[in-house]
Amino acid sequence: MVEYDAPSVAYLGPPTSYTHQAALECFSAKDHNFSPQTTIADVFTAVETKSCSYGVVPFENSTNGNVVETLDLLGDRKGSHPSILVCGEAYLDVHHCLLSMTQEIRDIKRIYSHPQALGQCQTWLNSMVKGTERIDVSSTSKAALIVKDEPGSAAIASKIAADVHQLRVLARNIEDSPDNTTRFFILSAGEKAPAITEPGEGDKTLLSFTIDHSQPGALCDSLKVFKDFSVNLTSIASRPSRKRAWNYIFFVEFQGHAETENVKAAVAELRKYCEELRVLGSFPDRQELHRNKGRH
Amino acid sequence: MVEYDAPSVAYLGPPTSYTHQAALECFSAKDHNFSPQTTIADVFTAVETKSCSYGVVPFENSTNGNVVETLDLLGDRKGSHPSILVCGEAYLDVHHCLLSMTQEIRDIKRIYSHPQALGQCQTWLNSMVKGTERIDVSSTSKAALIVKDEPGSAAIASKIAADVHQLRVLARNIEDSPDNTTRFFILSAGEKAPAITEPGEGDKTLLSFTIDHSQPGALCDSLKVFKDFSVNLTSIASRPSRKRAWNYIFFVEFQGHAETENVKAAVAELRKYCEELRVLGSFPDRQELHRNKGRH
Repeated sequence: MVEYDAPSVAYLGPPTSYTHQAALECFSAKDHNFSPQTTIADVFTAVETKSCSYGVVPFENSTNGNVVETLDLLGDRKGSHPSILVCGEAYLDVHHCLLSMTQEIRDIKRIYSHPQALGQCQTWLNSMVKGTERIDVSSTSKAALIVKDEPGSAAIASKIAADVHQLRVLARNIEDSPDNTTRFFILSAGEKAPAITEPGEGDKTLLSFTIDHSQPGALCDSLKVFKDFSVNLTSIASRPSRKRAWNYIFFVEFQGHAETENVKAAVAELRKYCEELRVLGSFPDRQELHRNKGRH
Repeated sequence: MVEYDAPSVAYLGPPTSYTHQAALECFSAKDHNFSPQTTIADVFTAVETKSCSYGVVPFENSTNGNVVETLDLLGDRKGSHPSILVCGEAYLDVHHCLLSMTQEIRDIKRIYSHPQALGQCQTWLNSMVKGTERIDVSSTSKAALIVKDEPGSAAIASKIAADVHQLRVLARNIEDSPDNTTRFFILSAGEKAPAITEPGEGDKTLLSFTIDHSQPGALCDSLKVFKDFSVNLTSIASRPSRKRAWNYIFFVEFQGHAETENVKAAVAELRKYCEELRVLGSFPDRQELHRNKGRH
């Protein structure tokens, strides 16, 4: 039995969603309350307003790329989530099934799922159910709920959703890549602890910045800083800044903790080339751990 | 009257789509045949197979970011479009309307549109029709077609689509940013001409590359080349490579033509750090031209 005042974890719901599974891998069910949210923005709000201690949101899929809604919320262009920080990451193998109340794939007229899941199953969809109408909904588990009441429709969702909603599994592992993996961020709010963990081996740091695009070479100058300070960039993404057309907010991740000397020096130098810069969090890299787990 | 053997232009249809408008701005209706395609992939195929001389596809929106389908097709991870090159760009101001057969916004139960258009109108949707079901379809003009036969539904599409399909305009200019602009690429296939234009003032070059992510610093090393050769990066985007999880294909744009000496030297140096590198095209920068046009 979980204590009434146990720390609570907001996640992108409904229950049985992939994010729910990731949240259950990160937080023990014994010691935490779990709070499903309708949208990724609702998870941010729950953490920002302290109605939940932590949040879990999808960030990136190995087949289909960034979840732009999460990137845009981390960019916080409206200033509505100023104290959100990333305090951890998690990886989950994602295997999709085609679920339905109908018995045969050939009788399926409509397929519901989250756009990310539809994107991860494109090859299968284009060969097995080419031309069947595809309808985006807010989550894979929502899709499972819909098809429960709509004969002739199918959902792309998890095996767990099939069990919970008592749906037939018409096809398994329909994702394009066998190593289809989604990466999640754990969010918290407030001052340093617990949002920024203590420096350790194998940390990563995420930061966002904007540059003055009217300055020639500004993007090169900012990226060169990482090389100059021997900071190893592991990923880069960009989104429109929404301040002016064709201005971007960049998201970079690199190895190292924000509180170590060379990262502090690199960030200080980088600030010279940036209009805005935010350290969004430092956290232990879990990618290797996940990969090794898969081998056993 | 257009000649039967006039050059043909494939575009993301159906007719009246924003891409159709962009195509009409780039190619004179007098001298070209226009061929609407159902998907962005179909435009690539029409150009690759030479069934059309040119293709027009959306690449990026100033509010909602990259069109990932176009990025993925340019990345050509399956090797199905090896000769596609970008030979030009075009900008189009995008103003969205809410169109319906129904008279009142409060009676609208469902809103159809392309996910990009829904993304560009989020603020309006969240304040004016919060909670109304949103359904993704393949184009804004397809959405207009659907609502023609479905009372109680509305489409986000252009004013032109309202005129063509005789729909009511329930709201105008519902996009979040008044300077909402979409950037399109003009595609062609084959050897240099006409795919790569002659070097001139104000050219841009687009290239894609992948790096060996197991090499620490590989991303920094590759990006530093642009600075070393005084090549001004104007944008950067990344997508999963789909070869291994967490490996990316990067797309960079920079000022300068691929056939000039310093760009050739930079690309030769960059190749040392890349697994694969493709020059996707050099073309005149039309951004300034579009901005000035807007002022008159």
